[in-house]
Amino acid sequence: MNNHIVIMAGGIGSRFWPLSTPEYPKQFIDILGCGRTLIQLTVDRFKGLCPMENFWVVTNAAYVDIVRKQLPEMPENHILAEPAARNTAPCIAWACWRIKGEDPGANVVVTPADAVVMNPEEFRRVIGNALAFTEKSDAIVTIGIKPSRPETGYGYVEVDTLNVDTLIRSGNDLSTYQPINEIRRVAAFKEKPDLETAEKYLKAGNYLWNAGIFVWNVKTITEAIKTYKPNIASDMERMRTAADVQEVFPQCEKISIDYAVMEPAAADGRVYTHPADFGWSDLGNWASLHDKLQKDSANNGAVGKVDLYECKNCVVHAEEASKVVLQGLDGYIVSAKGDRLLVCKRSEEQRIKEFSQK
Amino acid sequence: MNNHIVIMAGGIGSRFWPLSTPEYPKQFIDILGCGRTLIQLTVDRFKGLCPMENFWVVTNAAYVDIVRKQLPEMPENHILAEPAARNTAPCIAWACWRIKGEDPGANVVVTPADAVVMNPEEFRRVIGNALAFTEKSDAIVTIGIKPSRPETGYGYVEVDTLNVDTLIRSGNDLSTYQPINEIRRVAAFKEKPDLETAEKYLKAGNYLWNAGIFVWNVKTITEAIKTYKPNIASDMERMRTAADVQEVFPQCEKISIDYAVMEPAAADGRVYTHPADFGWSDLGNWASLHDKLQKDSANNGAVGKVDLYECKNCVVHAEEASKVVLQGLDGYIVSAKGDRLLVCKRSEEQRIKEFSQK
Repeated sequence: MNNHIVIMAGGIGSRFWPLSTPEYPKQFIDILGCGRTLIQLTVDRFKGLCPMENFWVVTNAAYVDIVRKQLPEMPENHILAEPAARNTAPCIAWACWRIKGEDPGANVVVTPADAVVMNPEEFRRVIGNALAFTEKSDAIVTIGIKPSRPETGYGYVEVDTLNVDTLIRSGNDLSTYQPINEIRRVAAFKEKPDLETAEKYLKAGNYLWNAGIFVWNVKTITEAIKTYKPNIASDMERMRTAADVQEVFPQCEKISIDYAVMEPAAADGRVYTHPADFGWSDLGNWASLHDKLQKDSANNGAVGKVDLYECKNCVVHAEEASKVVLQGLDGYIVSAKGDRLLVCKRSEEQRIKEFSQK
Repeated sequence: MNNHIVIMAGGIGSRFWPLSTPEYPKQFIDILGCGRTLIQLTVDRFKGLCPMENFWVVTNAAYVDIVRKQLPEMPENHILAEPAARNTAPCIAWACWRIKGEDPGANVVVTPADAVVMNPEEFRRVIGNALAFTEKSDAIVTIGIKPSRPETGYGYVEVDTLNVDTLIRSGNDLSTYQPINEIRRVAAFKEKPDLETAEKYLKAGNYLWNAGIFVWNVKTITEAIKTYKPNIASDMERMRTAADVQEVFPQCEKISIDYAVMEPAAADGRVYTHPADFGWSDLGNWASLHDKLQKDSANNGAVGKVDLYECKNCVVHAEEASKVVLQGLDGYIVSAKGDRLLVCKRSEEQRIKEFSQK
């Protein structure tokens, strides 16, 4: 098997304080209360596509011990500890250069560690299709999520309309497509839109959410980085020892893979997308967590030993607590972790990062 | 010094869950956030009236280690561990029989461990007066708190009006009275009244709150128990060894000192009260804690590292938490302890015991 999975696990999840903290961020938390942390769920959903020895995690040096503990079956030398956070382009480049060193014929999926997928079977089908496509081509593929609402919090992928006429005609029922044939060329990447634009995207039918899940073979991505970001490619060539990493990596250009490679490559007509509908969420905020949790009859979603009296529309996470009693709350976030506690109206959740830092 | 202090510390404080639990109840908590627990504050306020070696604590066997830790200067053999809770009459009888064995000329104050007094200097003056009175008489004295509101949660002491005419004429300004002369005869004890009755008591001026603080010499109380509850007195005579205590104490009649001694003795005209105004509260519920805590400009009282945003009229206790953020709460109790949490409207606090037991 030449398939490799790169899991990006360097985020700090500040919007979920105190559930997620810089010391123990979101990707290492059982945020859904299902018994598995987000990074464990991420590994789980790739099982069958790739043997365990072909998984890679790129994370902050501070989280290496957590990764080892949560993923004991991972090869230790596949946990890449970033000495500094340099955004996704250097992170992905490092992993792909390392994979190329081990397996020059590798076919690679890159994924965030902290998203959720409610239909892993469909996920594996889509990723399998994309891998089959990149195994035999130099395509750069990004997974495009079929939007269910005019979301303003995500970037969008504009699909080339010349290729998606059937997609539109069939009313977006992706299940009618054949593998490979589902894959479309990307016309352009679009920044997070305002609501009016997002509504236009939703209506147009050829705009998909950019989930940050990429598929390519290792030769394609390393050459693309050489082409579009030669400075990062040359930094990678210099990183031969652990000491080199310590010296070079923190000096790498701090840039996302989207700006560094995807956008210029799309402009050159080299980027493809696989439209997908597998119940994806980036779990970027409490609203999306509430959305994914099972709700009681009063629309409360709660993780932990939580007794609710006269509560509605609440989202509660207190997995460590032995007993939580909430009475008379409507539309609140309640989050308890260790010796920290947040109670906050759901309408004010954008202030949580500020609260946590004060 | 013949003065002895008996601290009753066997309560379980179920109305303050999860701050107070049966494993670690209210009297052992720094409920005011002042750096001292309620039992430590109780000891503190008697300092100067009685040397440390004359303090006694009667508590449940389960709390002996906590008492030792919180009051390391207490003589170990003065911590009396009740093998079972039998209400206050056997508890007080046991302590007084033990004191009589050590010091037949002892003069005794009995106090709960979990009340607060905001003016300890005035407290010492009042207790000093009462001790001076019982040193030279066989009076049974209960401290009567001058009521500040028509409270329905306390029992009342009716003061003999023949003795309180000056009290009424002076507008209840107790500071104009001379020591000893302040002490009045008790006409009767009154059960917790309904609101209408409580308002009458407040208006009448000769009704005081029964604080459960008693003063007497040890000869007086042991003889009174012999007179009014000979069965308890004879149980006490049988408790010579630790094994006797284990056998006899759990069989003692379960009865309060009020029913066992105070009421029949009052009917015999043998009970006196010292009216007092030293900022007493039994801290019996969250409302009384809110009352005693320092409030911010929005009427929130908080103990712990608590950041409040758009909150008002809240009472918060989270002394162990490293950071608590509360936003948008009006009139709530928030209590966090160990791995337990309560958020509850203040108007619903009478349900807390039920919540904690479910």
